[in-house]
Amino acid sequence: MLKYVYDFSEGSKDQKDLLGGKGANLAEMTNLGLPVPPGFIITTEACRAYMADGVAPADLKVQVTMALRKLEDEAGRGLGDFEDPLLVSVRSGAKFSMPGMMDTVLNIGLNDSSVEGLAKHANNERFAWDSYRRLIQMFSKTVLGIDGDEFAHALDAAKAAKGVTNDVDLDAEDLKALVETFKGIVREKTGREFPQHPREQLDLAIIAVFESWNTDRARLYRRRERISNDLGTAVNIVTMVFGNLGSTSGTGVCFTRDPSTGRTGDYGDYLPNAQGEDVVAGVRNTLSLADFDELDPKSYDDLKGIMRQLETHYRDLCDIEFTVEKGKLWMLQTRVGKRTAAAAFRIAGQLVDEDLITMDEALERVTGEQLNNLMFPQFDAKAKRTLLTKAMAASPGAAVGMAVFDSPTAQQWAAQGKEVILVRRETNPDDLGGMIAAVGVLTSRGGKTSHAAVVARGMGTTCVVGADKIEVDPVAREFRVGDRVVREGEIIAIDGSSGEVFYGEVPVVASPVVRYLEDGLDAAIAEVPEADVDQADLVRAVDRILQHADKVRRLKVNANADTPEDARRARSLGAQGIGLCRTEHMFLGDRRVMIERMILADDDASRDAALSALLPLQRDDFIGILREMDGLACTIRLIDPPLHEFLPDLTELSVKVALAKERGEENADDLKLLSAVHKMHEANPMLGLRGVRLGLTIPGLFALQMRAIAEAQAARIKDGGKPRAEIMVPLIGSVMELHLVRDEGEKIIAQVSKETGIELDIPIGCMIELPRAALTAGRIAEAADFFSFGTNDLTQTTWGFSRDDVEGAFFGEYLNNGVLTISPFETIDRGVGRLVKLAVDEGRATKPGLKIGVCGEHGGDPESIKFFDAAGLDYVSCSPFRVPVARLEAGRATILSAGSDSR
Amino acid sequence: MLKYVYDFSEGSKDQKDLLGGKGANLAEMTNLGLPVPPGFIITTEACRAYMADGVAPADLKVQVTMALRKLEDEAGRGLGDFEDPLLVSVRSGAKFSMPGMMDTVLNIGLNDSSVEGLAKHANNERFAWDSYRRLIQMFSKTVLGIDGDEFAHALDAAKAAKGVTNDVDLDAEDLKALVETFKGIVREKTGREFPQHPREQLDLAIIAVFESWNTDRARLYRRRERISNDLGTAVNIVTMVFGNLGSTSGTGVCFTRDPSTGRTGDYGDYLPNAQGEDVVAGVRNTLSLADFDELDPKSYDDLKGIMRQLETHYRDLCDIEFTVEKGKLWMLQTRVGKRTAAAAFRIAGQLVDEDLITMDEALERVTGEQLNNLMFPQFDAKAKRTLLTKAMAASPGAAVGMAVFDSPTAQQWAAQGKEVILVRRETNPDDLGGMIAAVGVLTSRGGKTSHAAVVARGMGTTCVVGADKIEVDPVAREFRVGDRVVREGEIIAIDGSSGEVFYGEVPVVASPVVRYLEDGLDAAIAEVPEADVDQADLVRAVDRILQHADKVRRLKVNANADTPEDARRARSLGAQGIGLCRTEHMFLGDRRVMIERMILADDDASRDAALSALLPLQRDDFIGILREMDGLACTIRLIDPPLHEFLPDLTELSVKVALAKERGEENADDLKLLSAVHKMHEANPMLGLRGVRLGLTIPGLFALQMRAIAEAQAARIKDGGKPRAEIMVPLIGSVMELHLVRDEGEKIIAQVSKETGIELDIPIGCMIELPRAALTAGRIAEAADFFSFGTNDLTQTTWGFSRDDVEGAFFGEYLNNGVLTISPFETIDRGVGRLVKLAVDEGRATKPGLKIGVCGEHGGDPESIKFFDAAGLDYVSCSPFRVPVARLEAGRATILSAGSDSR
Repeated sequence: MLKYVYDFSEGSKDQKDLLGGKGANLAEMTNLGLPVPPGFIITTEACRAYMADGVAPADLKVQVTMALRKLEDEAGRGLGDFEDPLLVSVRSGAKFSMPGMMDTVLNIGLNDSSVEGLAKHANNERFAWDSYRRLIQMFSKTVLGIDGDEFAHALDAAKAAKGVTNDVDLDAEDLKALVETFKGIVREKTGREFPQHPREQLDLAIIAVFESWNTDRARLYRRRERISNDLGTAVNIVTMVFGNLGSTSGTGVCFTRDPSTGRTGDYGDYLPNAQGEDVVAGVRNTLSLADFDELDPKSYDDLKGIMRQLETHYRDLCDIEFTVEKGKLWMLQTRVGKRTAAAAFRIAGQLVDEDLITMDEALERVTGEQLNNLMFPQFDAKAKRTLLTKAMAASPGAAVGMAVFDSPTAQQWAAQGKEVILVRRETNPDDLGGMIAAVGVLTSRGGKTSHAAVVARGMGTTCVVGADKIEVDPVAREFRVGDRVVREGEIIAIDGSSGEVFYGEVPVVASPVVRYLEDGLDAAIAEVPEADVDQADLVRAVDRILQHADKVRRLKVNANADTPEDARRARSLGAQGIGLCRTEHMFLGDRRVMIERMILADDDASRDAALSALLPLQRDDFIGILREMDGLACTIRLIDPPLHEFLPDLTELSVKVALAKERGEENADDLKLLSAVHKMHEANPMLGLRGVRLGLTIPGLFALQMRAIAEAQAARIKDGGKPRAEIMVPLIGSVMELHLVRDEGEKIIAQVSKETGIELDIPIGCMIELPRAALTAGRIAEAADFFSFGTNDLTQTTWGFSRDDVEGAFFGEYLNNGVLTISPFETIDRGVGRLVKLAVDEGRATKPGLKIGVCGEHGGDPESIKFFDAAGLDYVSCSPFRVPVARLEAGRATILSAGSDSR
Repeated sequence: MLKYVYDFSEGSKDQKDLLGGKGANLAEMTNLGLPVPPGFIITTEACRAYMADGVAPADLKVQVTMALRKLEDEAGRGLGDFEDPLLVSVRSGAKFSMPGMMDTVLNIGLNDSSVEGLAKHANNERFAWDSYRRLIQMFSKTVLGIDGDEFAHALDAAKAAKGVTNDVDLDAEDLKALVETFKGIVREKTGREFPQHPREQLDLAIIAVFESWNTDRARLYRRRERISNDLGTAVNIVTMVFGNLGSTSGTGVCFTRDPSTGRTGDYGDYLPNAQGEDVVAGVRNTLSLADFDELDPKSYDDLKGIMRQLETHYRDLCDIEFTVEKGKLWMLQTRVGKRTAAAAFRIAGQLVDEDLITMDEALERVTGEQLNNLMFPQFDAKAKRTLLTKAMAASPGAAVGMAVFDSPTAQQWAAQGKEVILVRRETNPDDLGGMIAAVGVLTSRGGKTSHAAVVARGMGTTCVVGADKIEVDPVAREFRVGDRVVREGEIIAIDGSSGEVFYGEVPVVASPVVRYLEDGLDAAIAEVPEADVDQADLVRAVDRILQHADKVRRLKVNANADTPEDARRARSLGAQGIGLCRTEHMFLGDRRVMIERMILADDDASRDAALSALLPLQRDDFIGILREMDGLACTIRLIDPPLHEFLPDLTELSVKVALAKERGEENADDLKLLSAVHKMHEANPMLGLRGVRLGLTIPGLFALQMRAIAEAQAARIKDGGKPRAEIMVPLIGSVMELHLVRDEGEKIIAQVSKETGIELDIPIGCMIELPRAALTAGRIAEAADFFSFGTNDLTQTTWGFSRDDVEGAFFGEYLNNGVLTISPFETIDRGVGRLVKLAVDEGRATKPGLKIGVCGEHGGDPESIKFFDAAGLDYVSCSPFRVPVARLEAGRATILSAGSDSR
């Protein structure tokens, strides 16, 4: 006979598979000798048998009977006895906490006669009838499947009839009448009476928990979370204790440390004469634990002892639910508690100091996302604010400034010392000047990996995107949200961590963690006000854990940086090199006219002239960056985007030309430009003439850049530096493309070496950002000195998702319906990851020890970093501000993979 | 000691690896006892040693000396003797015939003294000096690397000085002077004398052949053709024989059957008193073999005997080069001969009848491309024509008609009985009516897989695309090529096999092979004029071989068909089902307004109304197709393209609205439409809201289609048919998407089944057309009843190539520089193929026996069919007109893979 039922005394916290999370922790507490109301657990195995056969296993009923008898014997009361009834709660509890499943039915065992017994025994008639009312309501909804609104309406009607608004204002007689009404609803909806037999109530509730495992909502949730449908749920049957039996009763939740700040010492809320659901519903103001101590010192002392015991036992912050019934403390639940980012770091440090955990474990218990949250200034939580809309949080931070609607205005106003927020429908490379000048960027279109989002994240500028409730009108220089019009110059505030957009000023508080990261511990501590021990302690905890991460990690952390300023900042934040230096940004601003001339060149001579003019500028760009990164590798990517990005927009120009014609003001230059734009127009530019395709199609373009790199390297060597430039070729799909660029590059490097008399060693490698590159990586490695995964583009083509379009169009729907659990542009997806793994393995099979990194957005994403560590990459590269996050996560990846090895 | 030198008597035709193609065949002929001028072969191994060490292997010189001595002994003459010199030719000859390598140096052994001996012995001074002149010229160019123009100019100058235009008008004295001039050029360019020592000439020529293996051109060629650089070339040293020693000498080429028509009997050209290069250069008119028989019956008899012997020996058409020197026949080369498509079929049939080959071998020796060529009408080769331009051949055939510039005109004129050719910059779904009405389609933009090309191929309409020399002006209703203007209504002709565009009428000849394929052998033969035995024989040969292909093939062949007419045609051409029935074409024409209403719907009710109106129409579409394909599977793909394809173009509409505003004629409908178009505009529609993403985002759209399919299936069953509809979901990237559509589909099918009382069994499967689908095929198979590869889209995303853009922009360059050897949209690429293989293997691991096919363009491509057969697919699906090609190639795939198994 399979054992389907476990008494609490028979289980432990390590049996979550069999007993579910809630049951396992109840069993653990029972075995610790803590005052847990007696109860038992029906295993997930029983649920699985039910799912397979459609009926509960034959042995279950007997085993429940035995367990129930033991419960009754110990309590000296019978389930639903008419004198002093034993009541139980039935709660679901799967291995993973799971919304969508049945939660709880309380007060099982009450019926028309035991309610009287309860009233008498508790000496509280109102309490007894209210308990019965609650049973019928919960049971009918979750077990009998009757619409909960039916009961809510009846309750409202009863209050309205009596002219009161609170449930507590209904007295025993009112509740008796309400019970009759409720029973009528059950009769009407099910065609039968509300089940009076306590054991029938119990059995039906157990089956309902089993059934709740397979509701649409639960299945959808599991699909999303990749939880197997085969696990099943456990069922917990627990003796009811009541916190609502007068002033010596009550209920509360508490934490063993402050989950908000991480301060040591107990933290919690207590509500006298109340049940758990009242605390959650916030019907009355709760008391602090200190008040509880005053009110009921004995219970509080008991609780305090248990809290210490649990924390030592679980070696972590515990989150506890408890009830006091007539002066007797009962533990209803415990689990490892959630906490804020600051608390996570501080508590981890404290637990090390208390010898409860090791530094490795401390590192496991904080996350990169938490560190990231600590780095950004935030709106003062206490300040008032006016919410305009909530959209996608694209680059964290809190920015306050005047709304401006174009890049020139942003630059002009910023030059006057104004703080501005650039508001655009969407941004393109032309907006770069404005984005640099602005303290924040807000767009009404695009997703988390749109141009605005990617560039803003790269610059560490606060950004909110896809605010589709906002209508931006750049001509009228205003935007609308509903009825409100915000004009240029008016103050707005955007929260890049929450996606919120506010009207008017909101005060901001700065982060000492950033000061620490950039300038070291002493500088940061020196700036913290003496009184603010929390901040000082936090900074020390971050320092300690980050240093440990640096010590243990295998992955190097590089940064994506396009300018000397970015490079310097990245280095100060701990970057060990530049993994991606984009060169297209060097063709903007004043130089745009040069590249336009190059594109529009009618013949080789004028194109060559345009390119030659760019050479000294490019060389100086590279010299500046190589100087900042002296001694560290600096991977420079040849120009990547489609050239028409440097030309005007087709539709705008067409309208301009058509209007000019209409007005008889035709302009030959515009016509020529329109013809060029037409010629270069592509239906799908992302899949068009860009990257290496440009280099192989436009003579001299890559040659110019490679010569500039070689000359910069030579100039730095001449100046006594240790430059380590690397040439990276974008959008390789076939080894032949790389062979052709490499042949040209090697010739140029040899020439420059000869011209300068300086030996040059410049590796030439490529991006792996197309599925075909990954699928033929074994061949491509023949011609590559290194690989760098461009996981943004690789995700675009692997999924067939355009970053620019898709997020707005249907990502919302896809996240809702469970097709996506997270954007694959945020965390590397299993399909894309498979290509990465394959390319690493086959690239290194061809060329053992091949240097491989990643420079897409995923390089700064915690989950993805774990994957890249496991895949064997040498480094990740991310935007400068993500470098500390990546350092931390790379350390965690080492620890976690070592842990998983030993399991 | 390694053997580097083989006498002709020591080799065989199976030693191409070691002796190269030419050498192996010379050895084979020698061993057959045929009159081959004595000679020897330096192996590819010697060349490989040379490449590895930079010098010829030490033993080579001795071995050449030995072989040469044997040659001299047998000839009784010494190399370059001053009295009666032995002369030799030196020719490269790798395993694969390879342009870019050194070809031939004749007359090695001549110098200032042996030229006199040759003159004396041949009794022909002019001949001797001309031979010497040729040696210096060829040797200097190919061995010494002197620019060939230097000699050509000197030759021209000599003729000019004498006032003649032909080489033959230079006499011995002129040639003596020319030799001096040539030697002067050598002296000037190399700083040394032309090598006089015969053995030095030979050794230098041998090294030159080795070196020619590694020229840039040769390496590039090998990269493209995926020939290993390690093979190396052999070198053939052959005793010179002369066909230019008077009227009893001559030279010729011949074939053992007519390579043009396939007729039995010898076929060739003979040129008396000439050398091989004269035949190629066409300096005089050649004689037929019959004339040769009359002129020199003995040599002709010898040749005839040898031709029979070679054909029986090689069991195939042989291509032969021969020379007669003073009445003695010498064989200079043989190989299996190239032939036309018609000849290939006829000769294969003949060889079976002659018991030389089996039917399997006959099938190996024809190709699908050859069958395809036979299916299309062609321009009469004898007719005169005026070429306008040559562009990309997109859909074969020969079309003649009046140029028209829009779809309505095309339809209107076609309705009046006119034949029209639709000329557009590019086409879109709106042009479909015009494309159907036209006999041909010509576009100035787009590549072989542009909309115009794909749709035209699907309909079997002749099509030429990417004619970028043509400027189309639809407003003026004309196009320009250079100075010529072609106005609407003028006659043009396009050749869809060559890409040529002609001005004016060109006569067309029809294909009896199509008649055979559609209506059977008897009907086709009955139509062939009695006198035309070639045509009748061809049709019989095609029938015989195609029937054999059907007998042996494992792959099924389905068709892509969207209408009952297409379905009927496909079935008549042998399709065994419909592998892809696109539904988007059903939303065009009159129904476009309905889909537009659906897209623009403001609320659910109006969208539902728009969809409901489409239901009966869709159902009738499906009934029609299911009726035609009764008993055969019919895979219907749910709507795939981005919805904005059904709306006006953004730029055009923007211009229209701007102009209307300028004129004060604003129109609310247009403004609303523009707003919708703006909202739906995507930067990269190919990667945007389409396929299953539409289905999951727009409520009711897929439901409408699935209901229409289920109702059509029910209606056909009610009518006693055996419909086999299948529902195919496009653009799946994740199994979750398929689960969601499947859940909805199963509910709808069950509903319709209940409503009609008819049991419905409609499989639901999906396209595999995104890398992620292939990479997660093991999971997707859990929810799929079948897979169908959409290799067009899969190629787009795997390579990151947009079909609409890329071909025009840089495919030309990529084909030139060797990155691509063929468009991956034509023949399946190794990277894409790897995804296909992976998805097949992992899909079937999840669901053994899973039905898998392909419905992209590659389904009709011979090379790709071989791949799909090997990958284990169940069927290929292609446009109706490719069905016979696919049947043939599927048969060949079976034979060829069986052959490769046994090797």
